[in-house]
Amino acid sequence: MMKSIVSSKYLACLVGSIILNLLFIINIYVGGQWKLSWSLGAAIEAETVAAIYCSGHGRAYLDGLVVVGNKPVCDCNTCFTGPDCSQFIPHCTANADGLESVEELLRDLSMHSYSGDPLFLEPFWMQHLASSALVVAGWHQMSYTYGGKSFVSKELAKVVRKVHASVGNAVTQNRFIIFGAGSTQVLSAAVFALSPENTSSPAKVVTSVPYYPIDKQQTQYFSSQKFKYEGDAYRWKNRSDCSSTNMIEIVTSPNNPDGQLKKAIFHGPNVKTIYDHAYYWPHFTPIPAPSDEDVMVFTLSKLTGHAGTRLGWAVIKDETVFNRMMIHMQMNSMGVSKDAQLRAFKLLNAVLEEGTGIFDFAYQTMKSRWERLVQTVSLSNRFSLQENNPQYCTFYNKVRQLSPAYAWLKCEREEDKDCYAVLEAANIIGRQGNLFGAEDGYVRLSLVRTQDDFDILIKRLHKLITEENGDKTM
Amino acid sequence: MMKSIVSSKYLACLVGSIILNLLFIINIYVGGQWKLSWSLGAAIEAETVAAIYCSGHGRAYLDGLVVVGNKPVCDCNTCFTGPDCSQFIPHCTANADGLESVEELLRDLSMHSYSGDPLFLEPFWMQHLASSALVVAGWHQMSYTYGGKSFVSKELAKVVRKVHASVGNAVTQNRFIIFGAGSTQVLSAAVFALSPENTSSPAKVVTSVPYYPIDKQQTQYFSSQKFKYEGDAYRWKNRSDCSSTNMIEIVTSPNNPDGQLKKAIFHGPNVKTIYDHAYYWPHFTPIPAPSDEDVMVFTLSKLTGHAGTRLGWAVIKDETVFNRMMIHMQMNSMGVSKDAQLRAFKLLNAVLEEGTGIFDFAYQTMKSRWERLVQTVSLSNRFSLQENNPQYCTFYNKVRQLSPAYAWLKCEREEDKDCYAVLEAANIIGRQGNLFGAEDGYVRLSLVRTQDDFDILIKRLHKLITEENGDKTM
Repeated sequence: MMKSIVSSKYLACLVGSIILNLLFIINIYVGGQWKLSWSLGAAIEAETVAAIYCSGHGRAYLDGLVVVGNKPVCDCNTCFTGPDCSQFIPHCTANADGLESVEELLRDLSMHSYSGDPLFLEPFWMQHLASSALVVAGWHQMSYTYGGKSFVSKELAKVVRKVHASVGNAVTQNRFIIFGAGSTQVLSAAVFALSPENTSSPAKVVTSVPYYPIDKQQTQYFSSQKFKYEGDAYRWKNRSDCSSTNMIEIVTSPNNPDGQLKKAIFHGPNVKTIYDHAYYWPHFTPIPAPSDEDVMVFTLSKLTGHAGTRLGWAVIKDETVFNRMMIHMQMNSMGVSKDAQLRAFKLLNAVLEEGTGIFDFAYQTMKSRWERLVQTVSLSNRFSLQENNPQYCTFYNKVRQLSPAYAWLKCEREEDKDCYAVLEAANIIGRQGNLFGAEDGYVRLSLVRTQDDFDILIKRLHKLITEENGDKTM
Repeated sequence: MMKSIVSSKYLACLVGSIILNLLFIINIYVGGQWKLSWSLGAAIEAETVAAIYCSGHGRAYLDGLVVVGNKPVCDCNTCFTGPDCSQFIPHCTANADGLESVEELLRDLSMHSYSGDPLFLEPFWMQHLASSALVVAGWHQMSYTYGGKSFVSKELAKVVRKVHASVGNAVTQNRFIIFGAGSTQVLSAAVFALSPENTSSPAKVVTSVPYYPIDKQQTQYFSSQKFKYEGDAYRWKNRSDCSSTNMIEIVTSPNNPDGQLKKAIFHGPNVKTIYDHAYYWPHFTPIPAPSDEDVMVFTLSKLTGHAGTRLGWAVIKDETVFNRMMIHMQMNSMGVSKDAQLRAFKLLNAVLEEGTGIFDFAYQTMKSRWERLVQTVSLSNRFSLQENNPQYCTFYNKVRQLSPAYAWLKCEREEDKDCYAVLEAANIIGRQGNLFGAEDGYVRLSLVRTQDDFDILIKRLHKLITEENGDKTM
């Protein structure tokens, strides 16, 4: 009797234990993880680095700076320091600068921080880790070309078309798509491609004030017998000698610095127009209608926030222009990094998977930043912001305001001619108006950087304005 | 008695089962795999695509062409087709061409296949999967810069220095390192950077025949008031009017097309020299000594075989030249893709981990290809190859021959003035001598492509030669 009880207990334990065996077997052989072989080590390495704690004010990178041993250190946001980025630097400067001019670059090379990095989108990707993770084999895409045919990834072009279709910001059917190392290289390729082959007088490249400084600097840098930068488009409007010469107008719309939806000034048989649509996404502007221009330039940087990937594209109507831009890409860099194209492929697929996710996140972030900025500036009669007329947005099916990437701040006082200096005195670094062809009464402030950068900018602005108002309470 | 036997059996089973459970627990919680979270899906996806069978004559890519559903199809080697690349195309052309000229590009854009892809290294990476695998988080390196400071990854620069030190092919201590989109962009940056700022007469850019066609085409394409392409360096040697004008000589060493170790022709205060060392690796040449020139250009493409990554670098002595090249990178493409830099970081670390592995593999592959080529051509008095004088190699501590990336084939017969046509008639596509500034009695054949490409090249050459010798037996 005694024994039978014991043995039945054994039996119960045995059954339980066997069930547990089965559960483990199922977990291991149906769980999928057993499949991993060559990628396992790299995956563990990447997740280990990604897990390094940086207090929410930084992040550690796989190829990040290594100080001791081989563990990368935290890459901290501006104004934060320490091994885990937990220490705030009290009197640090609010960096609301961008990254555009040569002078800037040389100055910044020796400075701690700069750049109009669209890091406001970083939290979105930190919230969507699985859909945006990428695993690359060592032998992946070693060739110069795809299928021995082209520098352009057909599959990436497909995804780009899908994204434009889902947003409704550009017509891509029966259009050619070319990729380049960011919109910077694509814009340059377009200028070369649209310039006359053999001509005595180079094409006049113009942009209307306030313009994106890189267009001027880049065109001047590469200027040749083919084309020359001729400054503000308005200067040439209604000049008879232009009707005969070749003109190339670069239209940045929404505009950098002021975020306005711009239209071309020049029209006619001798005029070629390049639309820089880097900011033509719901993040920054209402989408009144899909754009359908001859040459439209976009960039991953202002869509997903991946500025470092250097991946821009052009949507082109004319095949000859497309072919000439392909030649430019070959002459310039023998095509575009396939790693950049693969990364963009993964990220844009993730964008599509998330539905309106990234647009909602980006728009809400920019909207709330603008609300805080407008509220702060409204306390002052010394400063003003660009106008912001609401328009109908076909993406959100509602009337909405602009939420531009940059604030185009104006110092209203007569004595504040040098608005940059006024802000600098308050520990705020912006970008001088004259760089955009405007007066120095204007300063451009970047609003697309990290939340830390934006919070410090608002804090400093608020301090400047309240002190000016004689309110020393804060 | 009976019961006790049964119960003791239960006990045995129970103990065994419990041990099994413990093993499972150990496997799961100490095996490391349990750590994987966000990267697991991407890892499984990548390994699944990598496992697609392509008969050893192709491979499937994560971003490869998708015909039906969402499973990428095999990307087949030249002369192979079918869903798994198993079908040989009998009369297909042996492609021993390179990818360099504009005419070529436009022709090739509409052709099935081209390019001097260094795919001979693909098998090495397929044999070293774990050390070369890369896992990237969606939020990885979104900024334009590294630490708000520079476009150049310090960690990648460190690895590049280590690789040069391990091979002994370049002096990198107290030198500046800059990255670009392949040596193509880096060479262009160097020409711009070495050209005089404000001058009435542009710098003369020269290369000595036979030269690398891209140097000519690129310099002509970007020519401006700053610099102009002036053709064969020998034409200008000993000309008095050169002693005063600024000269920029591009020295490709080992040379493309003929693989010879070249030296500069011009020297003096007005002369700047750019050494294109793309092929200065044990794969292709003995390493007599570490190079220590003012500006030395290298590329990942000819070291690891990753042409599609577009990652080249320059080792620079002078800080001003370095800064001007940095400005060029910004004006041209706002820096270099961080994804390309990350990939290079991973691959070069794998190169270091494998000791002399990749060099042994590359040298042995090129050596055996040359042995087969020399043997084949030696059967003929109609064709000849470039001279190949053995030299002492400090890397292998022995005297060895060159094993160049290209064969510089000469048609010896008077009537074979158009050597390209002779080969084309035998279904072999090479590159005309005149593209390199030489006579059309020469043709360049690429030897760095896939094993399939090389095998077909030898087969066709052998057929051509044996038929010419009246031997119709094969």
